[in-house]
Amino acid sequence: MSPQNAGEPSPELIFETFNAYQRSAALRAAIELDVFRAIGEGPGDVDSLARQCASSGRGIRILCDYLTILGLLAKEEGRYRHTPSSALFLDPRSPACIASAARFLGDPVLSAPFARLAEVVRNGHTVLPGDGSVEPDNPIWVEFAHGMAPMMGALASPLAAIVLEGLAGPLRVLDIAAGHGLFGVEVAKLHAEAHVTAVDWVAVLEVARGNARKAGVEDRYHLLPGSAFDVDYGGPYDIVLLTNFLHHFDVPTCIGLLRKVRAALKPGGRAATLEFVPNEDRVSPPVAAAFSLTMLANTPGGDAYTYRELQAMYKDAGFGGITAHVIPRSAHTVVMGLA
Amino acid sequence: MSPQNAGEPSPELIFETFNAYQRSAALRAAIELDVFRAIGEGPGDVDSLARQCASSGRGIRILCDYLTILGLLAKEEGRYRHTPSSALFLDPRSPACIASAARFLGDPVLSAPFARLAEVVRNGHTVLPGDGSVEPDNPIWVEFAHGMAPMMGALASPLAAIVLEGLAGPLRVLDIAAGHGLFGVEVAKLHAEAHVTAVDWVAVLEVARGNARKAGVEDRYHLLPGSAFDVDYGGPYDIVLLTNFLHHFDVPTCIGLLRKVRAALKPGGRAATLEFVPNEDRVSPPVAAAFSLTMLANTPGGDAYTYRELQAMYKDAGFGGITAHVIPRSAHTVVMGLA
Repeated sequence: MSPQNAGEPSPELIFETFNAYQRSAALRAAIELDVFRAIGEGPGDVDSLARQCASSGRGIRILCDYLTILGLLAKEEGRYRHTPSSALFLDPRSPACIASAARFLGDPVLSAPFARLAEVVRNGHTVLPGDGSVEPDNPIWVEFAHGMAPMMGALASPLAAIVLEGLAGPLRVLDIAAGHGLFGVEVAKLHAEAHVTAVDWVAVLEVARGNARKAGVEDRYHLLPGSAFDVDYGGPYDIVLLTNFLHHFDVPTCIGLLRKVRAALKPGGRAATLEFVPNEDRVSPPVAAAFSLTMLANTPGGDAYTYRELQAMYKDAGFGGITAHVIPRSAHTVVMGLA
Repeated sequence: MSPQNAGEPSPELIFETFNAYQRSAALRAAIELDVFRAIGEGPGDVDSLARQCASSGRGIRILCDYLTILGLLAKEEGRYRHTPSSALFLDPRSPACIASAARFLGDPVLSAPFARLAEVVRNGHTVLPGDGSVEPDNPIWVEFAHGMAPMMGALASPLAAIVLEGLAGPLRVLDIAAGHGLFGVEVAKLHAEAHVTAVDWVAVLEVARGNARKAGVEDRYHLLPGSAFDVDYGGPYDIVLLTNFLHHFDVPTCIGLLRKVRAALKPGGRAATLEFVPNEDRVSPPVAAAFSLTMLANTPGGDAYTYRELQAMYKDAGFGGITAHVIPRSAHTVVMGLA
């Protein structure tokens, strides 16, 4: 997102915003048609791409031109090729490919409230039934665990390094709302004496268990199915991970949960959230700040909280030594407090 | 649209593109809630805006932050205010307000194919029934005539100046696919001896007639209801306007129509299209080039044609003296040929 409010008034940004839904559709269609694999395999001319993607030449040419306009492909002398980002993140032959995120981010359940966004703004909360995306056993979290693993997995190594820094010996780790499980799994991989207990809905934990198995840490990976608000965490733990979780809830709910987390930690134990943390102006940086709208649309009271707000929640829950760690080349920040 | 393919690979552009549909939803919701009027009236704090827009504070704050991130509002010391563009083009108190375009550009009929865009690309044409957006008497064109008039009306004066340049005395003007009628109406306003005949579906012509009446040129404004491909144009004419029309059709259809147009012109008469005309690379400038995708999704064979392609069509139809006139501060170009 690049604010274009400088200079002479122009209707172009407005026209582009009316049509911005087409961008999501184009990216999703390209992933469905396996365009990014074909681009990587080459040679990148329209006829070859059409053949590789079992598509019409007209359709491929217009789609690839559009992706080029978006900056998701490059075009030179009539041939399409990858940009550095599309090669790394959209070509399924790349280990860092995040194309599977299309399923979760384009889930019709989560996008439905945007068709009724005026009503959402009037009400101040989701128009989804019940608690929206955070309704118990909502099947979207299985989709999240599958589809978002590659996008989130890139954050696992920096997160694990932050929470493990300076620790040695046996560690007990609680991974709340574990999802794909990659954060806890990474801690287990980096720290051979760490035992990880993952909390999530039972169907989601199957995905996490699969990832623990693939990583070879299943013997130190334990499942605790149920709601993070209701289950007995056991403990005490050295580390609690609370990744992409607090943003779904209002401030009192977050504080209540953080109190429960603190009670499950050893004295001096670490509670680490991974969050979109906008600046205090709430309009920068763009990706982190824009995430508030997703929470408005999909939850009863969630938000992208500023560092000051997260700090206050931690303090209210009895934590000290609160620190923020921006993860480079990402829109995420780790906020950590000590019990 | 600002290609961000320079520099270090980043998943942010991809994440933003997956979520770009939220931008359209936010702009539409803000228009529906009359946020841009409230911003203009001030004072611009969340509580006042929530009251003015009969909305929740949480909803308004998050929506206005999001619009600020998009560059459609500005925020200073916790208050929201207009950008130059939103003041001019989105505040309903501005005579240049184009917010009514939301109805046409967000029409579910026209956006539906984007939910099936992979299928569209495979087939190479719209998945809408029949001829899609160009199906006879499609009611979307009444919506176009109402909703797009302000956005298109801004182009009427430059277009009229181009087609009238150097002409004097009585003129007969044919306005094909007149829609809102503002292009022909402007010619009639600027040239007191011009008589304009407007071709469009009968329900659409009612909108054009209303605009001719408002402009005080109804006595020189004549209606010719029906398909531009089927009706007898009469004539001969000095000027034929073909605004936002050729892009809906494939090249042979355009050439056939241009031949019919030429046959209805006096020798030396002018045929002027108003089009999104991308550069020969087809990926710039962004708004004109991106329009191809809309034509792929909504028509059987339309496109945003380059100047070279339009030139070739004109030549094939027997025109000479073909010229292109970029309209400043717009994504549109007038291409004119002489019979």
